[in-house]
Amino acid sequence: MKQHNFSPGPAALPESVLQEAAQGLLNYNQTGLSVAEISHRSPIFLAIIEEATALVKELYQLDDRFEVLWMPGGASGQLAIAPMNLVSKDERVAFVDTGFWAQRAIDAAAEICQIHVLASSSKSTYDHIPKDWTLPNDIKYLHVVSNETIDGTQYHTYPDVAVPLVADMTSDFLTRPLPMEKFGVIFASAQKNFGIAGVTCVILNKDRISEKMMGEIPTIYNYQTHIREQSLYHTIPTFPVYVSLLMLRWIKAQGGLIAMQAQSSAKSSLLYAEIDRHPLFTGNVHVEDRSVMNACFRGINAEVEEAFLAYLTQHGIVGIKGFPTVGGFRASMYNGLALESVQYLVDLMHSFK
Amino acid sequence: MKQHNFSPGPAALPESVLQEAAQGLLNYNQTGLSVAEISHRSPIFLAIIEEATALVKELYQLDDRFEVLWMPGGASGQLAIAPMNLVSKDERVAFVDTGFWAQRAIDAAAEICQIHVLASSSKSTYDHIPKDWTLPNDIKYLHVVSNETIDGTQYHTYPDVAVPLVADMTSDFLTRPLPMEKFGVIFASAQKNFGIAGVTCVILNKDRISEKMMGEIPTIYNYQTHIREQSLYHTIPTFPVYVSLLMLRWIKAQGGLIAMQAQSSAKSSLLYAEIDRHPLFTGNVHVEDRSVMNACFRGINAEVEEAFLAYLTQHGIVGIKGFPTVGGFRASMYNGLALESVQYLVDLMHSFK
Repeated sequence: MKQHNFSPGPAALPESVLQEAAQGLLNYNQTGLSVAEISHRSPIFLAIIEEATALVKELYQLDDRFEVLWMPGGASGQLAIAPMNLVSKDERVAFVDTGFWAQRAIDAAAEICQIHVLASSSKSTYDHIPKDWTLPNDIKYLHVVSNETIDGTQYHTYPDVAVPLVADMTSDFLTRPLPMEKFGVIFASAQKNFGIAGVTCVILNKDRISEKMMGEIPTIYNYQTHIREQSLYHTIPTFPVYVSLLMLRWIKAQGGLIAMQAQSSAKSSLLYAEIDRHPLFTGNVHVEDRSVMNACFRGINAEVEEAFLAYLTQHGIVGIKGFPTVGGFRASMYNGLALESVQYLVDLMHSFK
Repeated sequence: MKQHNFSPGPAALPESVLQEAAQGLLNYNQTGLSVAEISHRSPIFLAIIEEATALVKELYQLDDRFEVLWMPGGASGQLAIAPMNLVSKDERVAFVDTGFWAQRAIDAAAEICQIHVLASSSKSTYDHIPKDWTLPNDIKYLHVVSNETIDGTQYHTYPDVAVPLVADMTSDFLTRPLPMEKFGVIFASAQKNFGIAGVTCVILNKDRISEKMMGEIPTIYNYQTHIREQSLYHTIPTFPVYVSLLMLRWIKAQGGLIAMQAQSSAKSSLLYAEIDRHPLFTGNVHVEDRSVMNACFRGINAEVEEAFLAYLTQHGIVGIKGFPTVGGFRASMYNGLALESVQYLVDLMHSFK
């Protein structure tokens, strides 16, 4: 039976991307070599990473003020790397506590610098994004979790503040155009909207940040190392970068970020309409802050939830169980998930008794 | 034309492993899902990482004193992570300067703790491993580069010292049995002997090291985080871990580490015999310290080197050019490279005029 994969990440990729990735793994462009068994400094791989970088710049319309880096690992690493690069231990960074990933960012930064939490929605189980707060004058940057993967909230408009935003965009990178001038740093691991796990794309806006000098932090974590070496200071995860390139080409071919935004809107509108209509389900998040990436919802009681999960599993729906601490359901609808899969899920909800 | 891939890493993988990896990318075990698009916390992936961990333990015959971790990124990251975890900034760590990777380890540790270089072969272009040195009493551990990928040396016997060894084994992990009791930490990125770039295997010998407590270093870099969370504190690079599992199964099926050692010996003996016999080539490294993984050699002059490289390229030999700062040739013969490829190279050397 065809599976419909609503996994929160690593997540569904378009079939054409998987096919081309598998082909590259066996014989890349008729070279007789696997794309995964060539040097990261070979001309073949250099062409791959350069095209991937150029496509990120093209899709976001970035000029030379911006640097695009590829770093190994995921966003959890970047939660330490960002404050290490941007502030000293006596300086203060601000956060809006919007959920699991804001909490992890706060904990990571607290090990490196001074932190200030502007507001939190934890008391209402992170059912909205707090917007009523004032930024103190001594704050160096504001960390925002663009989309809370686990809690299902998303900034539809970013805060207007004097300081740069540092954005964890792991679960909504490359899904819509961005007001780039607001951001100092954007980072996103690939495994949700543009590839597989193992690599993170980092965008630095040199107009908005001043990085520490070499030597103040370990070389391997210093943005300047990776700017200087064009992400090749060490062996980059080559195959994950290649899959990112395939996804970037796919995004461009679909019509770029405007098209991704329209697809996300179509998918999430369809699902939320069914959640709101259905007498057995309720959405977790206030309508205005609902994520178009991760729709979190509950059944009216435990019996309904159990029966519905069994029904979905039986019909080929995968990865839709909510995060253990949240419960209920979470339907993740990243770039790689087809509208047909959402329609299929909605039809199942409709027929569920 | 069939290519013979002598790349220094990312490097050649057995055809059967690539075939199975490509199949898993498209449809893992008839699940209808790609192994790269499922959650790292799904039962499917948990079975993969648990089997990979168990195979490392089985191949090295590790008991419960040892922890096997999987971390994102490569050895360059571990060069900072090891001293961060093992020593405070006033404590001293010793190094034998055997080449490029010893240098990088020294530079990385110098940003974190006190360093002491016992000896260096830099003045003779790293053509041997210095063995005539005495370890001061205040040293906490001795860092060794088990195999210098770029310079072509390898420890065939590890130093006998009272302190634990911390070994960068990126280019000879899983290629021979080890005297495990000597080591405090072993780390190796996958892309040379057991997989593709993006993940590093770390072995901790709890009998030989005492790690720092949580909170003293960033959580994401703390060994204890990854011990506690069984490498799943964050999203592990799932597909690279899967390819490592396939390589670990392949190594076991070949006969384990004894078989890998015999194969390495057969391949490298064949090539070094031809280098030593051939009037136009000379090996870079003293015979007793030659690496069985990376055979570094030169032509007798620039004209010979240029002609030989063109000849090899024309005949389907890939990735054999020496590192820019070393020059000449480097034939990398990791686990995934077949003896036939070495025989083919030797035949080409033989016929080269």
